[in-house]
Amino acid sequence: MDERAALALVGAELDAAGDDCAVLDGTVVSTDMLHETTDFPAGTTRYTAGWRAVGASLSDVAAMGASATAAVAVYAAPTFEGAELRDFLRGAREVCETVGGEYVGGDLDGHDEFTVATTALGATEDPVLRSGAEPGDALCVTGTLGRSAAALRLFGTDDERANDLFRFEPRVRAGVALAPHATAMLDSSDGLARSLHQLAEASGCGFAVEGDRVPVADAVEETADGADDAREMALHFGEDFELVFATPDPEAAAGASPTPVTRVGAVTESGVRLDGDPLPDRGYTH
Amino acid sequence: MDERAALALVGAELDAAGDDCAVLDGTVVSTDMLHETTDFPAGTTRYTAGWRAVGASLSDVAAMGASATAAVAVYAAPTFEGAELRDFLRGAREVCETVGGEYVGGDLDGHDEFTVATTALGATEDPVLRSGAEPGDALCVTGTLGRSAAALRLFGTDDERANDLFRFEPRVRAGVALAPHATAMLDSSDGLARSLHQLAEASGCGFAVEGDRVPVADAVEETADGADDAREMALHFGEDFELVFATPDPEAAAGASPTPVTRVGAVTESGVRLDGDPLPDRGYTH
Repeated sequence: MDERAALALVGAELDAAGDDCAVLDGTVVSTDMLHETTDFPAGTTRYTAGWRAVGASLSDVAAMGASATAAVAVYAAPTFEGAELRDFLRGAREVCETVGGEYVGGDLDGHDEFTVATTALGATEDPVLRSGAEPGDALCVTGTLGRSAAALRLFGTDDERANDLFRFEPRVRAGVALAPHATAMLDSSDGLARSLHQLAEASGCGFAVEGDRVPVADAVEETADGADDAREMALHFGEDFELVFATPDPEAAAGASPTPVTRVGAVTESGVRLDGDPLPDRGYTH
Repeated sequence: MDERAALALVGAELDAAGDDCAVLDGTVVSTDMLHETTDFPAGTTRYTAGWRAVGASLSDVAAMGASATAAVAVYAAPTFEGAELRDFLRGAREVCETVGGEYVGGDLDGHDEFTVATTALGATEDPVLRSGAEPGDALCVTGTLGRSAAALRLFGTDDERANDLFRFEPRVRAGVALAPHATAMLDSSDGLARSLHQLAEASGCGFAVEGDRVPVADAVEETADGADDAREMALHFGEDFELVFATPDPEAAAGASPTPVTRVGAVTESGVRLDGDPLPDRGYTH
């Protein structure tokens, strides 16, 4: 079976699983694994790898509207170089500090491919699930989309800029601020289009997106080959780790959030549509 | 640098790291990664893999004297087969139930080698570290040693028995019961010999082990090629996940523990010795 079917099987077997994090008595937990071949293009520094791997799990914490408490990682590599390991730890620590959490360590493992497994912990008494969106709610996103897609095109020609783009800020503070306003939320790690299909399925609703309202990262304009390509990068590529949420009061949500919030559409009864046309469930499968 | 030097670097960089778990405000966290080529011999079922991978992290929780709250895992494999995935989840869930914790889910990841990354969480207000052993304390272990070494010899000829031996019981209940009595504790995942060197370094002490007191698993007697080989399996192979601890009152500790406790020697001023001879720091490096 493919990964999505397998994830559905896991969700059916385990009560606590299913959203961006597992939830347990006020604690949320998310775990991820990233690999050199699929997640760290040539040119990615270990500093960026540590930041991004830990950041991906922190983004799941953010998507639950939880504060970040701690993160750990397993660093698996064929060899252990002191400088690389220090850079990795610095990235892991700094991304935690950015969101008010603590990087508390982890483990090392000999492995033929550079691989990082991360786990982040968060705290909330009232997690925001994917399942509460109601027709009539506004559909909003934080920040801009397409950063990671643009970064991938810059690796090899401008590694420094690509690394900068790859080190995203997990939206933990925004998630906490948005939690009282959001009826459903997730992060855009699979791309906006796929994220909306996931929200629609969990909430039993649809979405109408207005294409010209979707906030696109500056780097997309610079690296895209025309408008269609830019749209693909912003809507489908994913790995942006912005928050996608529904809210009955988008002004209040925007006012509460430390990260800019853009209303990109509305929750509808059914169907995921972009400017009236079906928006395909196509994106990044991790 | 080798893995031990790299681990020392991580420990020096991070205040919260260093023992079997990272410690953070009453919560302990441990994370591990296991791979098919190094950790799951041919014949290991996915049920056993799920049990053992999650159990390894739970054993670290036990070594801190903490109760187990939850565990998560990333299941990475080239393909996702429903039956294998269900078996894995069953093993992960059952090992958690065995120790009173909850398996709350995790993630899936496409990867060329079957790899499992696990994280376990525990709770304790007073974690038992590796650093408190005092000369004059008794040195004790739970259960028996050599199970995993014996299992490795049985894979290929008696897979069912090998799988049974591979599914160890993490000593979480024993760890909680022993915590008030133990001055220093860790688990024997690197083998008794190496564990004692680690305890000796952290506590600034030595150990005198009495060889004929070391409790050896029945399966070792059946699979060993003579007494020297049996001793190697029990003292050096490791991956047994028993608790190794120092205590001023071994009778009280044994009385409190739901798992049999054996006094195998004493804490000394310096040097790790077996029947008077140096016990080499040789064992399993994960």
